Amino acid sequence: MGDPILYDIDTLNEYCISLLTKAGVKTEHAEIIAETLLCAELRDIKSHGIIRLPTYLQRIEAGILNPIADMRFEKEYGATALLDANNGFGQIAGHKAMTAAIEIASLYGIGVVGVKNSNHFGIASYYSMLALEKDMIGIVMTHASPAIAPFGTKTPLLGTNPLTAAVPTSKEIPIVLDMSMSTVARGKIRYSAMKNEKIPFGWGLDSEGNPTDDPQKALDGSLVPIGGVKGSGLALIIDILCGVLTNNSITGEVKNVTDMSGPSKTGHLFAALNISAFMDSQLFKDNIDKIINKIKALPSINNNQIYMAGEIEYYLAEKKKKDGIPLEEEVINSLNILADRYSASRL
Amino acid sequence: MGDPILYDIDTLNEYCISLLTKAGVKTEHAEIIAETLLCAELRDIKSHGIIRLPTYLQRIEAGILNPIADMRFEKEYGATALLDANNGFGQIAGHKAMTAAIEIASLYGIGVVGVKNSNHFGIASYYSMLALEKDMIGIVMTHASPAIAPFGTKTPLLGTNPLTAAVPTSKEIPIVLDMSMSTVARGKIRYSAMKNEKIPFGWGLDSEGNPTDDPQKALDGSLVPIGGVKGSGLALIIDILCGVLTNNSITGEVKNVTDMSGPSKTGHLFAALNISAFMDSQLFKDNIDKIINKIKALPSINNNQIYMAGEIEYYLAEKKKKDGIPLEEEVINSLNILADRYSASRL
Repeated sequence: MGDPILYDIDTLNEYCISLLTKAGVKTEHAEIIAETLLCAELRDIKSHGIIRLPTYLQRIEAGILNPIADMRFEKEYGATALLDANNGFGQIAGHKAMTAAIEIASLYGIGVVGVKNSNHFGIASYYSMLALEKDMIGIVMTHASPAIAPFGTKTPLLGTNPLTAAVPTSKEIPIVLDMSMSTVARGKIRYSAMKNEKIPFGWGLDSEGNPTDDPQKALDGSLVPIGGVKGSGLALIIDILCGVLTNNSITGEVKNVTDMSGPSKTGHLFAALNISAFMDSQLFKDNIDKIINKIKALPSINNNQIYMAGEIEYYLAEKKKKDGIPLEEEVINSLNILADRYSASRL
Repeated sequence: MGDPILYDIDTLNEYCISLLTKAGVKTEHAEIIAETLLCAELRDIKSHGIIRLPTYLQRIEAGILNPIADMRFEKEYGATALLDANNGFGQIAGHKAMTAAIEIASLYGIGVVGVKNSNHFGIASYYSMLALEKDMIGIVMTHASPAIAPFGTKTPLLGTNPLTAAVPTSKEIPIVLDMSMSTVARGKIRYSAMKNEKIPFGWGLDSEGNPTDDPQKALDGSLVPIGGVKGSGLALIIDILCGVLTNNSITGEVKNVTDMSGPSKTGHLFAALNISAFMDSQLFKDNIDKIINKIKALPSINNNQIYMAGEIEYYLAEKKKKDGIPLEEEVINSLNILADRYSASRL
């Protein structure tokens, strides 16, 4: 395997938009989807980056994702709303819902928008970060396909159910927490399995619910939630807010993005908190800067650099914007095959 | 040490109200404080029960908690509000704020109320559960005095920062998650230290930030957050929402309830989500029932009973309402000494 090739962001953006529009997505929507994929690439969350495109297109081809879904708000009630994504792209629904949450928050101090009948929406922090430029705190969550067994049980039923919060700063890098409820991502365990390496205890449980250091047994079993019963409880609450409150589904019914047997029936929840409804926004941002500096001035373990949530990703993004985004040769090949098939621009 | 003595809830309630009113608290406020203390007793969260009274009264005596604080909403903005607790009881502020959040949510779909200049508010789930009878989801968080070191550092700065969510059901027991961001409570480590027992790795870090099984070293160091960097990040977000957004304090400034050197400067955040703004409430509750039954039907580890969040506490409360609340003789003695000092009713 050769060295990865560096692509500038504009080239990748054009590739994504060309491919998506050829697959039937409207240009303005393709732009949003491309932006989320490249946001993940820039922040080095490759699992939610450009490699997702083949799966998304496969869903369209299989007729289980509608690229031109008509998304409508079916409930609007003061500071809340419910969007029916009508089985369209999670990214389009997510952008629409978060934009609405921000607009509502400018009027009411907070805006909360639930989304039903959606799909994989990519990198969650893309949406929470939309609140930053409006001096708002963005909070976003989604449920996902079964991966975590409810505490005390052997069967994965809860998703890893990511939660993200983005907090604006004055001069410092914004705080962007983006975390799932499992101790590690399933991808990490899959990687160990591929390399025939043991995993640390505390990552996975076998199908009998026992701790295991065998990656294959963990893949056949379930992921360990953070804090055991606590992470399991949090994952359930997120599932309820994203799945049940949106009148979308019952826990365990969400399909993985790679499961082509039908619509994924994913739900999300988007919230924006308008800081100026509580206090002076500039003072708030100055105070967050103070906190960041206070934490960074603490004695660190082994004299390591102390990073805030989202800080490493921010630096990586800055670097990649300048140097380009690295793609492996095999990824490029598969993306070009896809481009040819859709008569879209090659990389 | 003899067996604990069982007290019926009315007797304890009268004791609390008598003592608090003699200490200068208005009757209607004493009733709320008593209710939260007994809620903790019933749910077997003894750490937030009646044993807190001596500390609360000590704060009043020291002039660092105002029993007749004038609490006012200083910001009201659509679906949000900010209450200045004016250094009064956290319980009074909490009840007022959550009641307001519920009222706001009935108008706007969601209500979010921040509280500044507050104090220890006792058992967090008391407040989230207030939403249940209105067919709302209650979400409450508070920050607390330093206990957790920000990830990568050696110094406790973040509180355990509890988060609670209460979800209404139809026929089943409501789901009530009430959790801190540390793997275990400091009280558990203190108990092991007292008994000269080792603690499991994963509970505490020594003052150099290394994992330790020595309870004293953990008490001198910090508590391990759930999921490491994840729990540390969540604790910071909760601190920001409760402390910074309320214009209350900078991370690390909250004083422990037992620290008599000045006002504790505690902040909280209360949210109520009106289910009927999103969907039919009865259908929602029926669906939560379905989820509970679905989880309980899963194969369990070692054939153990599967419990939902808050379920064990619910059963304990039902039992104690009938049989009485057990108090140790030494607790009773100290409470009676306190009663005598205030010329209040003895137990």
